[in-house]
Amino acid sequence: MKNELDIAIVGGGVSGVYSAWRLQQHEGKAKRIALFEYSDRIGGRLYSKTLPGLPNVVAELGGMRFIPSDHVMVNALVNNLNLKTQDFPMGSSLPMYPNSKDPALKDVKAGSENNLFYLRGQYFRYRDFAQCPDKIPYNLNTSERGFGPEDLQVKVMNLICPGFADMSLCEQMKVKVFGKEIWKYGFWNLLERVLSNEAYLFMKEAGGYDANVANASAVTQLPATEYSDDTEFLTLTDGFQALPLTLCAQFKALPSCLAEDDKVKMNKRLVKINYLDDPDYRYELIFQSTCTDQYGKTVDDLTVTDQEIVKTKRLILAMPRRSLELIESEFFADPWLKENIPSVLIQKALKMFMAYEQPWWRSLGLVAGRSVTDLPIRQTYYMGTECDQAGGLPNTNSLLMASYNDIGSIPYWKGLESGELYSGYTPSYGCEGYTPQEIVPKSQCQITTGMVEAAHRQIEALHEQKELAMPYSAIYQDWGDAPYGGGWHEWKANYRLDEIMCRMRHPVDKENIYIIGEAYSYEQGWVEGALNTAESTLEEFFDLPTPCWLDQKHNYLPVNCNKTCKDQSEKVQPNASSNTLNEVTKFAYEGINHEYQ
Amino acid sequence: MKNELDIAIVGGGVSGVYSAWRLQQHEGKAKRIALFEYSDRIGGRLYSKTLPGLPNVVAELGGMRFIPSDHVMVNALVNNLNLKTQDFPMGSSLPMYPNSKDPALKDVKAGSENNLFYLRGQYFRYRDFAQCPDKIPYNLNTSERGFGPEDLQVKVMNLICPGFADMSLCEQMKVKVFGKEIWKYGFWNLLERVLSNEAYLFMKEAGGYDANVANASAVTQLPATEYSDDTEFLTLTDGFQALPLTLCAQFKALPSCLAEDDKVKMNKRLVKINYLDDPDYRYELIFQSTCTDQYGKTVDDLTVTDQEIVKTKRLILAMPRRSLELIESEFFADPWLKENIPSVLIQKALKMFMAYEQPWWRSLGLVAGRSVTDLPIRQTYYMGTECDQAGGLPNTNSLLMASYNDIGSIPYWKGLESGELYSGYTPSYGCEGYTPQEIVPKSQCQITTGMVEAAHRQIEALHEQKELAMPYSAIYQDWGDAPYGGGWHEWKANYRLDEIMCRMRHPVDKENIYIIGEAYSYEQGWVEGALNTAESTLEEFFDLPTPCWLDQKHNYLPVNCNKTCKDQSEKVQPNASSNTLNEVTKFAYEGINHEYQ
Repeated sequence: MKNELDIAIVGGGVSGVYSAWRLQQHEGKAKRIALFEYSDRIGGRLYSKTLPGLPNVVAELGGMRFIPSDHVMVNALVNNLNLKTQDFPMGSSLPMYPNSKDPALKDVKAGSENNLFYLRGQYFRYRDFAQCPDKIPYNLNTSERGFGPEDLQVKVMNLICPGFADMSLCEQMKVKVFGKEIWKYGFWNLLERVLSNEAYLFMKEAGGYDANVANASAVTQLPATEYSDDTEFLTLTDGFQALPLTLCAQFKALPSCLAEDDKVKMNKRLVKINYLDDPDYRYELIFQSTCTDQYGKTVDDLTVTDQEIVKTKRLILAMPRRSLELIESEFFADPWLKENIPSVLIQKALKMFMAYEQPWWRSLGLVAGRSVTDLPIRQTYYMGTECDQAGGLPNTNSLLMASYNDIGSIPYWKGLESGELYSGYTPSYGCEGYTPQEIVPKSQCQITTGMVEAAHRQIEALHEQKELAMPYSAIYQDWGDAPYGGGWHEWKANYRLDEIMCRMRHPVDKENIYIIGEAYSYEQGWVEGALNTAESTLEEFFDLPTPCWLDQKHNYLPVNCNKTCKDQSEKVQPNASSNTLNEVTKFAYEGINHEYQ
Repeated sequence: MKNELDIAIVGGGVSGVYSAWRLQQHEGKAKRIALFEYSDRIGGRLYSKTLPGLPNVVAELGGMRFIPSDHVMVNALVNNLNLKTQDFPMGSSLPMYPNSKDPALKDVKAGSENNLFYLRGQYFRYRDFAQCPDKIPYNLNTSERGFGPEDLQVKVMNLICPGFADMSLCEQMKVKVFGKEIWKYGFWNLLERVLSNEAYLFMKEAGGYDANVANASAVTQLPATEYSDDTEFLTLTDGFQALPLTLCAQFKALPSCLAEDDKVKMNKRLVKINYLDDPDYRYELIFQSTCTDQYGKTVDDLTVTDQEIVKTKRLILAMPRRSLELIESEFFADPWLKENIPSVLIQKALKMFMAYEQPWWRSLGLVAGRSVTDLPIRQTYYMGTECDQAGGLPNTNSLLMASYNDIGSIPYWKGLESGELYSGYTPSYGCEGYTPQEIVPKSQCQITTGMVEAAHRQIEALHEQKELAMPYSAIYQDWGDAPYGGGWHEWKANYRLDEIMCRMRHPVDKENIYIIGEAYSYEQGWVEGALNTAESTLEEFFDLPTPCWLDQKHNYLPVNCNKTCKDQSEKVQPNASSNTLNEVTKFAYEGINHEYQ
């Protein structure tokens, strides 16, 4: 019976398809394992699109990069699957002034120190934080001047608790600040005690992300400087979505007693989980069919009135907080779950890409990396030009991530979502096979003329340009829409994240229901977090051995889940970003010395 | 049968109790009319508390004032009920420098022009907007300088559409800006087209309310300058909650075939509305009992497992958006309701009061009105001193609204809600009958030491004081908590608010269910909006005549609900705030003249 399963996995994001792939590999063909996905797309918050004329420059609408030195599991998995990677540069090694006759200028690289800022009506560059602090339009104290936003954060960490980033999570949970454990602090609440409000606003506005200094747990936010322009990132050449797509294709191809089409069921919304008295099948899953509307959005399919009913022995919910909250079930009436499902903040985020016939930004010395502003676009990333790519077409079509913004600026964009859809225009090169209607592709969100015009005006202002040509194509994704709820999650203050991240994987002792994914992980906002909770659940509760492609002593969670932190004094795993932080810390100390010399 | 009703009203806020009072008066004792309330308190978002030692200075945790010239119904009702009113001053007529020997300074009044601002690390006064624009720490364009935030808004209105505030809503709905109807604009989206981003941030930060320039419908936000420091407000001497409490007491005392206790049922949460086949009683209401926990918070009463079932012929839901969304019913599956319940933004807001033994702020020339800052407290109001009140006790205990903040600053305060509760201390005078445990009163939210200390630090910074004595008592209310969802509502862009506010009152033709209250009204955020939707519903759908205490030609909604705006060319009702606006407009034009002379 295809509707009687050993293991049902709900959610076609990376943690879900990874679990299906690992379980089918290990359990062999006798086990009936099936994956259910709400939309018509595998990938969840990994969503890679290409725009016409730019087949080799990926628009990553969701997760776009990883840090190989920190994200050990992603790195190992990507290598194991032979997925092609490339640098995700935050600056460029190209010369900044290639035509300059001044030999000193000729050697200046268009590196991340050149990235542009437009805040409070003032223009400056990344290098000005250290070199020209008078240009920074924030009324900072003497001790706060001379730093970029992430370096200022490192300075704060060293003020509050030097070496905090190198401690184990158990050690971090024991650290007290002003007489109270640091996990009881929201990061904003803590910053308010050690920084001027201007320095706080500087970190928020110049840092590019509202979420980084939103009031999430100080334990995870204080050492989080990995968004810095100094970090070395990798990306997948074929798009980050290639990771879940490859896992899903391999899962489908593995031997199974289920037909391929019954192993991965698309367009199924999990409405309800019922407990059964059936000794074999404890759970009844009720699914509503969904479909894709004319614009590309997933909606309930009202032509299908029968709900699909599936029975299963075990159930993996590979879903974020909001998706879980949309399921009806007495499972969620469990007191521990009721208290701890809200233990994470859902951070709204939106990305928008625009395609141009020319990389006009290069004339401004901007090649890669980002610019940051307090305009509603907030962050703009320079993604690349088609002819520069390996195997790229011979044209200069170029991609801009026009906006990457979160929380406070989201309502601005929501107000522009109605109205005429943007139709763009056919560029001179590279779109020969496309009809005019195909230049702006259909996607889960459909971009309006109002959004493109607003972003375009802000792009002009950010780059101090009188008039730029309009983009020929554009696309965006608002992750706040159902069923995602937001772009990523952050632990709230006052929750024991060390204990919750362990127990959330198997929250109700007597039930075989498991919750995995980025939302309740240690590496929130990263694919690494999704994989860590998935693999640790499979090993601990499904008795799978560590995969051969992974370090056999790898710790998926930064705590030993078999004992509480109260019993743990040993270092379980150094903080994932400690290497990066040591670099930055060193820099920050140098900065301090330099400043007072 | 007490559980078989003619009319059930759910929600003990002002629109609910007003409806019960009016209906029972009109229908007489034969009709079985009952009111159900979730908490143990009548008043909803009108919640007036007094702190020990300050019996004559009310802490208004919710709505605190009305504008008699605009809020015609509130004004008439308050007079009809003989409720005592007093001024709610935004400044003071007391001398600013009473001891000065300089005759010029001696005559300066501590008026609203003296109100304090602390933004971007700079201190200035209200009068500096016009008199010393160089003190304002925003990088404004020449044409944007010299205005306060509300005056700048008037300037924008006159730029976009002079006289907009004096048009009828139907006329406003027809106004086009940049080729598009103004109701299709979010206010932020519109401002972005006519103001620099610095001017936008100035309006947001110096205006005191994030919500005023959040991206709600430009139709209602563009002319909304009634929060200005120039507006004349009234308040109720015994607290604004006296209005719903009086209405409720009078409703209970009116003759009825129901016992008093069956007319007003407290601590009942409406869980579900079922449709019945019963020809007499169409609706079955399922109620869960609630109780008050040890701190004063309303929670489900787990000792009562039986749900109360009530049948009714007609049903009035006097509730805001979030409360409606928490009810299970096929009623809300109606397509029009499904589309339009989300037509309003729920704006989070929080108020905090602190009691001191001395009105220390008077030494700074601050007597009444508010100060505004970009610190998380955002707005501080100087509420008054006990011995200054008519019949006040002979002590100098004084009340500060330490914080009135919304949207962006809410997460800051949520991070401080756990931990040790603030216990305060017994002041030297006025608290003779109180035990130490009673100095900080129990309320729906219970204030922590962390919140008081954070607010206190910010109060010190705002007033540039090295050290102030801690408050002896404190209280707060976060209206974002269930079941309210937020402090008030604002129409979203792209919704036909003129049509929705009419139809929301009786959204499904064939059902006798009515939705009233502030949320879907024209005067959102004000008691006037709640009363307007209630009275217009009673007159239109319950055939009640206009009450004798109200102008017989009063229009409750700014449109004629029997025809659409397309058929309406006559002015139905001038915009409620037009008088205020004319004043400000005049000022703004003078300002412009002055600037260019």
